Amino acid sequence: MERQDKDLAWMLQFDNIAWYEDGKVRILDRRIYPIEVRFVTCTDHRQVAEAIRDMVTQSAGPYVAAAMGMALAAYECRGKSEEEQISYLTDAAYVISHARPTTSKRMVLITQASLEAAKAALAEGKSDVSDLLRDHAVEQNNIRYARIGRAGKYLADLFPQHGAVMTQCFAETIVGMMLREARAQGKDVRFFCPETRPYFQGSRLTSSVIYDMGFDVTVITDNMPAFVMKNEGIDIFTSAADVICEDGHVVNKVGTYQIAIAAKYHDIPYYVSGAPDVGHPTIDTVKIEMREPSFVLQAMGTPTANQNVHGYYPAFDITPPELVTGVVTDRGVLSPYSLSEYRRDSDDLLV
Amino acid sequence: MERQDKDLAWMLQFDNIAWYEDGKVRILDRRIYPIEVRFVTCTDHRQVAEAIRDMVTQSAGPYVAAAMGMALAAYECRGKSEEEQISYLTDAAYVISHARPTTSKRMVLITQASLEAAKAALAEGKSDVSDLLRDHAVEQNNIRYARIGRAGKYLADLFPQHGAVMTQCFAETIVGMMLREARAQGKDVRFFCPETRPYFQGSRLTSSVIYDMGFDVTVITDNMPAFVMKNEGIDIFTSAADVICEDGHVVNKVGTYQIAIAAKYHDIPYYVSGAPDVGHPTIDTVKIEMREPSFVLQAMGTPTANQNVHGYYPAFDITPPELVTGVVTDRGVLSPYSLSEYRRDSDDLLV
Repeated sequence: MERQDKDLAWMLQFDNIAWYEDGKVRILDRRIYPIEVRFVTCTDHRQVAEAIRDMVTQSAGPYVAAAMGMALAAYECRGKSEEEQISYLTDAAYVISHARPTTSKRMVLITQASLEAAKAALAEGKSDVSDLLRDHAVEQNNIRYARIGRAGKYLADLFPQHGAVMTQCFAETIVGMMLREARAQGKDVRFFCPETRPYFQGSRLTSSVIYDMGFDVTVITDNMPAFVMKNEGIDIFTSAADVICEDGHVVNKVGTYQIAIAAKYHDIPYYVSGAPDVGHPTIDTVKIEMREPSFVLQAMGTPTANQNVHGYYPAFDITPPELVTGVVTDRGVLSPYSLSEYRRDSDDLLV
Repeated sequence: MERQDKDLAWMLQFDNIAWYEDGKVRILDRRIYPIEVRFVTCTDHRQVAEAIRDMVTQSAGPYVAAAMGMALAAYECRGKSEEEQISYLTDAAYVISHARPTTSKRMVLITQASLEAAKAALAEGKSDVSDLLRDHAVEQNNIRYARIGRAGKYLADLFPQHGAVMTQCFAETIVGMMLREARAQGKDVRFFCPETRPYFQGSRLTSSVIYDMGFDVTVITDNMPAFVMKNEGIDIFTSAADVICEDGHVVNKVGTYQIAIAAKYHDIPYYVSGAPDVGHPTIDTVKIEMREPSFVLQAMGTPTANQNVHGYYPAFDITPPELVTGVVTDRGVLSPYSLSEYRRDSDDLLV
């Protein structure tokens, strides 16, 4: 993957989201990062689907992993007949794109794009399209980086010259892009990151990126956002999203809804970055994924409750448009009520 | 301590809040309970103050520990002259009552009551008033139990016949009293307990009591209350309080404010149980205690973040009266705007 910018050195971490090479996909295990830097190595595309399901990677990670998983599937069926390879890759696209229910629509688009690229190359007589699908994944990701860079600028434009911003969960590349732009604009901004139980993505991941980029960053527990808004002068609450429905509903890591309610109560704007998701015209098309309940009865592997009580673990929640001040896209800031103004081109469906 | 009720067997745990005997105060360590049942043993009243400061005990625990600590201080100065003992106990009352800034006003009243009891006994010629001060602590606590029993009934009266209740943090005796009454009324209520980071009092303590009392209980992480309110039909949000100011502001474990905001957004009533605190006519008299910031960068002893980022740890937050539906006292349910209607008698100051 090309690196054009010294400031993007931190993105090395994210380049490790998932990478196909020589019959293996290597995925940075963000369940434990940064306490440990550990990788999950997959030698079969079904293992990639499992890694996606098991939240080895998060945020945009599953999309990159899905495309890299398609390259691995191509390696698995290399040398077979064109028909057999297409059949094998069609099955692989299904398995990978359905690893997680909430995000499956975009996953389908991404794996289908890989499948189409494979079909074209196979029709030209290639017998092993694995490296080609890896390059295809990289290309998609570079388009994504460029788009996120533009959204990062629109987001940083909203920051005050001196002030405080609250984040939620792990916003991956967008955080880096936003900070690079904020620094370029000479903005002196402090960040407050709720830890985001039960996986601690906020404390482990978001705060690490912000620290690495040289900004002042404070981790709080998930019961503190309203207190911090009241007492620390928060100017903006911002998050990325797993899905932004075209009707303005935002699906993101559980907790976003509650922080957005607190933000509204304190007259603090909430800006979500991303693009309306063509696969989700309304919130009714979204199924919120319920995860293993017992996972909330532990923290970093240590039990936190009598193991006979129930747990409850929705991975995401839904923030209605009335709580969303603006959707920060690569083409400017839109009202959640007018997402139809967002004009697409052919690449948009994939990244 | 007298136990008049089989249903109160669970209160054995709470009887272990703090207990003075033979020159020692033994305090149940709720920082680790119920994962481990461990006690902190204090042989000096300063260690009792440290244990209070270090949150070995919570909720009403510090008040019981303070009174038991006065008994220990009496043991330390036993046999000295009346004047020397009074001087020693006066100093001890100061040390113990100032262990935690937020709750110090009620702590002062409690330790002063012990001091007055000691003075009276010393004036009668006693040379060792330690057991007498232990009995004094028990007596105060029994008055407290009786009052909480009445408040528990008023609270259970508010529950629907079938429904769901959300709690916050550790409400100690009130939870047991409320559940005993709910059971007596044949009410079929499910409970949702936010875990209450960073100490996990909700997952470790509140949910354990509810489970032990035979009710259906579910632990959630602190970023889930709004989701649960939206999706699980919560009828009531309820908590105890560290301080209820006479102007209707509620000081309780951090997170209460945020859940109360979410409750208001979902039109769910928030009832706080306790009594208006004569030491706090307005919220301006309350100092919110900021604890060791690095404590939020770990969970159950395991690091959760890059240890170079900042932490931030307010122990409590403030919920304004506009978010409080009612204050459930031992004398009925009052509006937060009319707490002056609460009529006191001489015991009220202490318990």
